[in-house]
Amino acid sequence: MQAETVKSEKKQQSFKVEDRARLLVKCPDKPGIVSVLSSFLLKYNANIIESSQYSSDPENGTFFIRLEYYCDHLQKKAPEMEQEFKQIADNYEMTYHFYYLNNRQRSAIYVSKELHCLLELLWEWQNGDLQTDIAVVISNHEDARAVVESYGIPFHYLPANKDIRKEVEAQQIALMEEYDVDLLILARYMQILTPEFVNHFENRIINIHHSFLPAFIGANPYDRAYKRGVKLIGATSHYVTNDLDEGPIIEQDVERVDHRDDVATLKKIGGKIERRVLAKAVKWHLENRIIVEGNKTIVFH
Amino acid sequence: MQAETVKSEKKQQSFKVEDRARLLVKCPDKPGIVSVLSSFLLKYNANIIESSQYSSDPENGTFFIRLEYYCDHLQKKAPEMEQEFKQIADNYEMTYHFYYLNNRQRSAIYVSKELHCLLELLWEWQNGDLQTDIAVVISNHEDARAVVESYGIPFHYLPANKDIRKEVEAQQIALMEEYDVDLLILARYMQILTPEFVNHFENRIINIHHSFLPAFIGANPYDRAYKRGVKLIGATSHYVTNDLDEGPIIEQDVERVDHRDDVATLKKIGGKIERRVLAKAVKWHLENRIIVEGNKTIVFH
Amino acid sequence: MQAETVKSEKKQQSFKVEDRARLLVKCPDKPGIVSVLSSFLLKYNANIIESSQYSSDPENGTFFIRLEYYCDHLQKKAPEMEQEFKQIADNYEMTYHFYYLNNRQRSAIYVSKELHCLLELLWEWQNGDLQTDIAVVISNHEDARAVVESYGIPFHYLPANKDIRKEVEAQQIALMEEYDVDLLILARYMQILTPEFVNHFENRIINIHHSFLPAFIGANPYDRAYKRGVKLIGATSHYVTNDLDEGPIIEQDVERVDHRDDVATLKKIGGKIERRVLAKAVKWHLENRIIVEGNKTIVFH
Amino acid sequence: MQAETVKSEKKQQSFKVEDRARLLVKCPDKPGIVSVLSSFLLKYNANIIESSQYSSDPENGTFFIRLEYYCDHLQKKAPEMEQEFKQIADNYEMTYHFYYLNNRQRSAIYVSKELHCLLELLWEWQNGDLQTDIAVVISNHEDARAVVESYGIPFHYLPANKDIRKEVEAQQIALMEEYDVDLLILARYMQILTPEFVNHFENRIINIHHSFLPAFIGANPYDRAYKRGVKLIGATSHYVTNDLDEGPIIEQDVERVDHRDDVATLKKIGGKIERRVLAKAVKWHLENRIIVEGNKTIVFH
Repeated sequence: MQAETVKSEKKQQSFKVEDRARLLVKCPDKPGIVSVLSSFLLKYNANIIESSQYSSDPENGTFFIRLEYYCDHLQKKAPEMEQEFKQIADNYEMTYHFYYLNNRQRSAIYVSKELHCLLELLWEWQNGDLQTDIAVVISNHEDARAVVESYGIPFHYLPANKDIRKEVEAQQIALMEEYDVDLLILARYMQILTPEFVNHFENRIINIHHSFLPAFIGANPYDRAYKRGVKLIGATSHYVTNDLDEGPIIEQDVERVDHRDDVATLKKIGGKIERRVLAKAVKWHLENRIIVEGNKTIVFH
Repeated sequence: MQAETVKSEKKQQSFKVEDRARLLVKCPDKPGIVSVLSSFLLKYNANIIESSQYSSDPENGTFFIRLEYYCDHLQKKAPEMEQEFKQIADNYEMTYHFYYLNNRQRSAIYVSKELHCLLELLWEWQNGDLQTDIAVVISNHEDARAVVESYGIPFHYLPANKDIRKEVEAQQIALMEEYDVDLLILARYMQILTPEFVNHFENRIINIHHSFLPAFIGANPYDRAYKRGVKLIGATSHYVTNDLDEGPIIEQDVERVDHRDDVATLKKIGGKIERRVLAKAVKWHLENRIIVEGNKTIVFH
Repeated sequence: MQAETVKSEKKQQSFKVEDRARLLVKCPDKPGIVSVLSSFLLKYNANIIESSQYSSDPENGTFFIRLEYYCDHLQKKAPEMEQEFKQIADNYEMTYHFYYLNNRQRSAIYVSKELHCLLELLWEWQNGDLQTDIAVVISNHEDARAVVESYGIPFHYLPANKDIRKEVEAQQIALMEEYDVDLLILARYMQILTPEFVNHFENRIINIHHSFLPAFIGANPYDRAYKRGVKLIGATSHYVTNDLDEGPIIEQDVERVDHRDDVATLKKIGGKIERRVLAKAVKWHLENRIIVEGNKTIVFH
Repeated sequence: MQAETVKSEKKQQSFKVEDRARLLVKCPDKPGIVSVLSSFLLKYNANIIESSQYSSDPENGTFFIRLEYYCDHLQKKAPEMEQEFKQIADNYEMTYHFYYLNNRQRSAIYVSKELHCLLELLWEWQNGDLQTDIAVVISNHEDARAVVESYGIPFHYLPANKDIRKEVEAQQIALMEEYDVDLLILARYMQILTPEFVNHFENRIINIHHSFLPAFIGANPYDRAYKRGVKLIGATSHYVTNDLDEGPIIEQDVERVDHRDDVATLKKIGGKIERRVLAKAVKWHLENRIIVEGNKTIVFH
C-alpha cells in the first residue's frame, strides 16, 4: 500500500555471466587443499565470490568444496586453467568439474495430469530464478499443452503405460538428445521408469515425492497418511535411482494437518509443499550446489 | 512417480450449494445461547456441518459463534427462518448475519507492478479454492493486463498518484458499484487510500503488508529489515483502516533469513510469504470465518 | 531488561476447580445433538466455557463433542446430572464420560538413562501446566533417582530386560495399583512391553518415539535418519498399542538438519523435539482433549 | 521404547581441546586472502576443521572469515604463529583474533524473578553444550538462589532499582572482575543498564527480549502483542547497546498464537521461545561464531 523504491540488485548479478564459473572438487581430506585451490585461482586473478566446504571427517575423511568465482576474460583463460588444473587434481586425487555460467543447463519437465509443480517451475523460470533453459515439456496427458505452449516451450504428448514403457522411453531418450537436455525434472510424472532409463541419466533426474520420505514410499501417500493419522504431511525432492523413492534426498518440508483434514484437503495442502520443495531442489541443482555422495546429498546453500 | 487413484472429495461438497448457509452471531455471553441457536436450527431440520465459538471471557464477556449448516429446500425456508430469528436476536441482544453459499461474493483485485500475489489468487481461484467471483482487476499500471484478460476477467487501468487521488477513487468507487463488488483485495497495490474510500468499504478491504506487523510499518519494509539485521522476515494480511498498517490482523507468517541475504533476496523470499498469507486471508474472509472485534480478528479455522 | 507488570490471569482459572467439569461424547451424527446437550447443561445452570466438536461425515458419520463447563455447587448436582444424562445417552446411542477437575489424574513416568523428557515434564508440572499428580517414577536405571527425589516424588528402580519381563511387569502393575495411577508416560523408556501390560492400560500409555512416524519405526531411528540422509528429523507422541510404534498419533514435530549433522548432533536436536512433543501430548491427555477413534486421534486444541 | 546403541560422537571432539583454536578475521576484500590464510595454517601443519566466510560485496566489500583448526602441540606453536601473523595482518589491513579452546570463556548470568531462561542455560551447560564456565549468577531477587547453589555456582543477591543504579552497577562491575567474567547473559533481567555499564562490556552482554524485534520494543511486549492482535509472537536475542532493544540481533524465533490466547498464555508460549532463542545465541557466542558488524551480526552456523 506504499511506494517501494528499492533499487538493490542481487550482488552477484553485477558480474558479467561469461566471466563467472564454479569449481566443485571432491578428494581425500588432508592439509593444504584450500591453500592450493585458492593459490590456483589467485594466479589467474580469479576472485572467489562464494566458498563452501565440508569434510566428512577431519581425520581420513573426504573433502568437498564448491568455489564460485569470476575473473575478467574467463572465456579466454579457461582452457589454460583447466589444463593446469589437471596436475593439481592428480596430486590430490581430486574428482572435479568446472561449470561456466554462460553455458546454461537445458531442462526437460515431465508431467502428468496435476500441473501445480509444473506451473511453479514455469513461474520461477519466468522470474529469472532458475538458471536454465526449459527446452521441452513431456507428458503422458494433454492437460499441460496449452499453458506450456503459451510460454513458447515445445510440448510433446507421449502416452505411457507399463506395456509400452520401453518404446516410450526410447522416444523420450531420442527427444532428450534432440533437445540436448541436461536435467530431467519429474514434476508429478506418474510413471515408473526402467533401470535403463534411470542409468542413462544418473544424478540428472529430480523427482518430487508427495510424502516426507522414508514414510509412505510408493503409491497413494496422501491416502496412507490419512489412514495413519499423521499430524504432519510432507514432500521430498530426490534424485531418482532404481530403488523406488530411495534416491538421495535433496530437500524436504512439512505442514501441520489435523483430524478434520480429509484426503482431498491433504492433497491441497501437500500440493503447496510439493511446489516449493521441488522448486528449491531444481534451483540448487542448477546452481551446482548439490554433491551426491553415496545415497546422500551435500547441499551448499 | 506412481499412479494416484484417490477418489475422495471434500466432504462438505456433497451438499448442494443452494442448501448451505452460515450464521454468524455476536452477543453478550450468558448461559443458554448455544441451546437456543441449536434448537432454532433443529426446528427447520438444518444440520450443523461445522460449529466454532469463542467467548472473550466466561463472565460478562462477549460470545461469538459461526454455524455452518445445510437443509433441504433452504431457499424456500430462508425468509421464514430469518423472520423468526429476529425475536431470538432481540432477546439475546445479538448482532448476526446469514450468509447463503449460492450467493457468491464478488471480488475486485487491486494491483500495481508486482504480480506475484495477483497470480497466486488467480491460481487458487481457478482451482476452485476461493468461493468468489473475481469481477474485475484494477491497476495503476498496465503490467497485469495480459494475464488478467487471459482469464477472461475485465481489467481497468487507472493511473493514480496523490495529486489525483480523489478523482481516481471516485472512478474506482463507480467501478465497484458497476461490478457489484463485495470485497476489495489489495494485492501489493502501492497507493495510499483516503479515509473516505476506506470508510466506504469498512472491513471489506484486505491488504497484504510485506512485513511482520507491527514491525516495519510504512514504506520499504524489506530495506528496513535488511538494515535492522532481522533474522526472520514476514508478511501480514489485515483489514485496511485509516491508521496505516494498523488494521485488524488476519494472518501472518515468516521465513528465516541470514546475513548473506541482500534486499533483493529478502524481496524474493518475502514474495513467497506474501502470496500464501494473502491467499489464506482472502479464503477465510470468503468462507465467513473472520469476525472483526475492535482492532482484532477472531478467525474460526 | 524492563519491568513487566502484567496482572492478567488465565481466564478459566477464575472459576473454582470443584465447580468445573468436562463432558466428552461420541455418537452417531444426526440433527439435534448439540441442542439436547446444551439444553441439558442449561437446565443445571452450567455455563459452557469451551466447546469443540467434530463430525467424521455430515451424513451417517460419527459425532464427537467436548464440552468444558462450570456451575455453582457442581459437586452436589453431579450425581443427579449423571443420572438424568443416562436417558439422553440411551436415546442418542452415546458413549460418554464426565470428568471433574477436582479429581486430578495421577501419573507415573517411566524412564531409562536419558532424562531430558522426564526433566521437561517435571518442569512443566512444577509450573502448574500439567493437571496431574505425578505419583511415582519408575526406571530400569538409577540415573534419575536424585532429581526425582529432589521433587519429593517416589522413585522405584526396577531392573528390566527381556528375560525377566513378565516378573518386572507384574511388579509394575502392582505399583500402578498401589499408587492409584491413571496415566503411564514412557519418557524414553527403552523396554518393550508385553501385550498383557499394554492391554491392561488401554489408551492410558503415552510414548515418545524419536522419529516422525511412520518413518523409522523401531530401534535406532537417529542412526537410520543419518544413513538415509533426511533433511528433517522429528519426534512422535502416540498411545501405545501392541503394534510397535503403530499406535494412534497424538502429536508430531520436526526440525531441519543438514549434511554436516552427525548422529550425535541429530540426537541433540531431536532431544529438544522429543521434550516439547511429549509435553504437549501429556498436557492434552490430562485436559481430556484427545479422543481415540480407531487408530487415530481427534485432538481438540 | 527400544534399546538405543548409538556410539557415535561429535566428530570434532576427537581432537584434544588444547590443540584446537579459531581464527576470526575481518579485512577489505581482495583476491588472495583465502590463499594467504590457508598457506599460513598449512605452514604450521594446522588442519582446518571448519571454515566459513562472507563478503559484504565482491567488489570493494569487507571480507570476514572464521577458521577452526587443530594442530599438534598448538600451545607451543601459538606464540610464534601469532607473531608471524602480525605481518600478514598488516599487509591486508586485518582485524583479527585467535581463540584457544582450552581457554574457556567465563560467564555471568543475570536474572530477576522469572527463571525459565536461567534454567535452560544451566541445563544446556550441564549437558556440556555450552563451552563456558558459569562463574556466577547475579539477581535482584532471591528466587533463583536455591537452584543456582544446587549446581555449586555462586549466587549474589543485589537489589536494584533506578535510584541506586550506579551503586549497584559498581558492585556488579567489581563482581565481574572478581569472577573474571568474559560474557554477561541477561536471562530476563528486568533492569535498565546505564551507558557506562554497557560500554564497559561492549559486545559482551547478550539479552533476550520477549518480542520479535523491532516489534514491541520496551516494556510489556506480551500485553502489547495481545492488544495488537498479532498471530505470531516471538523472542529476540541481541547484544546490548545503549539504544534500548536496538542492539545487533543474534537470533529470533516465533510461534503461532490465536484469538483464544490471553496474555498469560502468550507468556507461557513465549517463555519457551525465549528459552531456545537465548540458549542458541549464547552457544554461538561461546563458539566464536558471531561477528558484530555495524549494528548487525554475521553468524557462521
